[in-house]
Amino acid sequence: MKFIKSIKILKDELKKLKLKGKSIGFVPTMGALHNGHLALIKEARKENDIVVVSIFVNPTQFGPNEDYLRYPRPFKEDVKKCKEAEVDYIFAPDVETMYPDDYLTFVKVEKLSDILCGAFRKNHFRGVATVVLKLFNIVKPDIAYFGLKDYQQFIIIKKMIEDLNLDIKIKGVPTVRDLDGVALSSRNTYLSKEEREEATLLYKSLLGAKDLILNGERNIKKIKKFIYKKLTSGKIIKKKNIDYISIVHPEKLEELKYIEKEAVIALAVWVGKARLIDNIKIKI
Amino acid sequence: MKFIKSIKILKDELKKLKLKGKSIGFVPTMGALHNGHLALIKEARKENDIVVVSIFVNPTQFGPNEDYLRYPRPFKEDVKKCKEAEVDYIFAPDVETMYPDDYLTFVKVEKLSDILCGAFRKNHFRGVATVVLKLFNIVKPDIAYFGLKDYQQFIIIKKMIEDLNLDIKIKGVPTVRDLDGVALSSRNTYLSKEEREEATLLYKSLLGAKDLILNGERNIKKIKKFIYKKLTSGKIIKKKNIDYISIVHPEKLEELKYIEKEAVIALAVWVGKARLIDNIKIKI
Repeated sequence: MKFIKSIKILKDELKKLKLKGKSIGFVPTMGALHNGHLALIKEARKENDIVVVSIFVNPTQFGPNEDYLRYPRPFKEDVKKCKEAEVDYIFAPDVETMYPDDYLTFVKVEKLSDILCGAFRKNHFRGVATVVLKLFNIVKPDIAYFGLKDYQQFIIIKKMIEDLNLDIKIKGVPTVRDLDGVALSSRNTYLSKEEREEATLLYKSLLGAKDLILNGERNIKKIKKFIYKKLTSGKIIKKKNIDYISIVHPEKLEELKYIEKEAVIALAVWVGKARLIDNIKIKI
Repeated sequence: MKFIKSIKILKDELKKLKLKGKSIGFVPTMGALHNGHLALIKEARKENDIVVVSIFVNPTQFGPNEDYLRYPRPFKEDVKKCKEAEVDYIFAPDVETMYPDDYLTFVKVEKLSDILCGAFRKNHFRGVATVVLKLFNIVKPDIAYFGLKDYQQFIIIKKMIEDLNLDIKIKGVPTVRDLDGVALSSRNTYLSKEEREEATLLYKSLLGAKDLILNGERNIKKIKKFIYKKLTSGKIIKKKNIDYISIVHPEKLEELKYIEKEAVIALAVWVGKARLIDNIKIKI
């Protein structure tokens, strides 16, 4: 496994491999790797000759009052995990390498970036799209892997690839959960023991809503009310902690008025200092 | 010469050529080709194995009250000129090919896009950057050629290439002028005979200002006043017709307070129905 910080060196290495006909699988991450990331890497390892993992805590996707500085950076452990997962290249550039002082260019997928989490995190998805486009241009992967836990991010990147005519396949990999059902997230480390227990309510409410729908309920208001009640059935999560409970079209992400065939139920909930998101796809 | 409307077909053709080691020179245009475009093509022809010219009147770079619909589209003549200039591929996609109904993604080079022409043409440079990025992703050129008449556009695209880590060289080709000094522009066709005569005042004022500076004048106010007087010395151009007279840093495009070593003087002036731009670089 090679560890590279320079854009030019990575480009040169990968160019040689591409000329030899090697396929490149790419897993962009912000580090603090957990089994969710490892599922992406495993998939990439299975489907490509070369696996590149980027580790870069991207400042442009954090708001001024968000957790950029305290975001976990367990770098040694990340490197060890990549090695064990047979990653070929870790790309871990410095902030100044990705964003020199005079940096000015941003890409934004309109509409999709301003709803759901985007309504609460201004410029977040603009930052995500920008850094991912830069990483795509540096790595030039055949396939890029994203976790479906960040469902809106997955849809936005997919749309960006299509709109900007990039020759990249995107694969969404199912959310990995702990035994208690909590979706793996680098931000789970912010949770106390009690908060962690409370965090199980997100997935429980999603599973409950799924049951409700599969048993015939179609009234969006009633389904949302059910989720709300479940979410606030513990001791910590209150109304003010819920950023949104949304039932949306799986591609357009528009709020549905009724559920026809498919829907995604998505949640964003503050539990202590952690803003947790989760979602579930419903097919009828 | 091949004429291609499909993104996929062009990509496939160029991919084969790239695999054979051919270099690709790219000249993006909106058609209505004049000797300025032909100078770009000539340069591309000299420096590359394959020359691709795109002809696409890009709707996203026109404002709602601008000349998108009446922009000249002399398609047959354009094709003939390309043939004579030994172009290998004309890429002329339909609007729906470049911007399907559900199109959402835009790229913007901040700051640089909001000054000079950008202050008068909201979203213009966002549209330019977006279409050029899409074309770059489709053609994947080694070198792209842009006219220095559109100086701000050249600087913005150059910055986008750098910021987004694209592997493309950009070359700025000097403005081509008619015998009367008027910079060639597809919009010159909007001018009546009298307006055309008046249009010569743009370059005359720039040359006069250059002389002034090279003779020692450093006072920005005085230089601008000189240009203003020259521009309005005819019968048609009035104060209200001048969008701006700017003396800027050649890369940052910031208004200069004094001229140290280099400067670009840039003008945008309405003459009849045509918004004309011109510029001159000064080196001391």
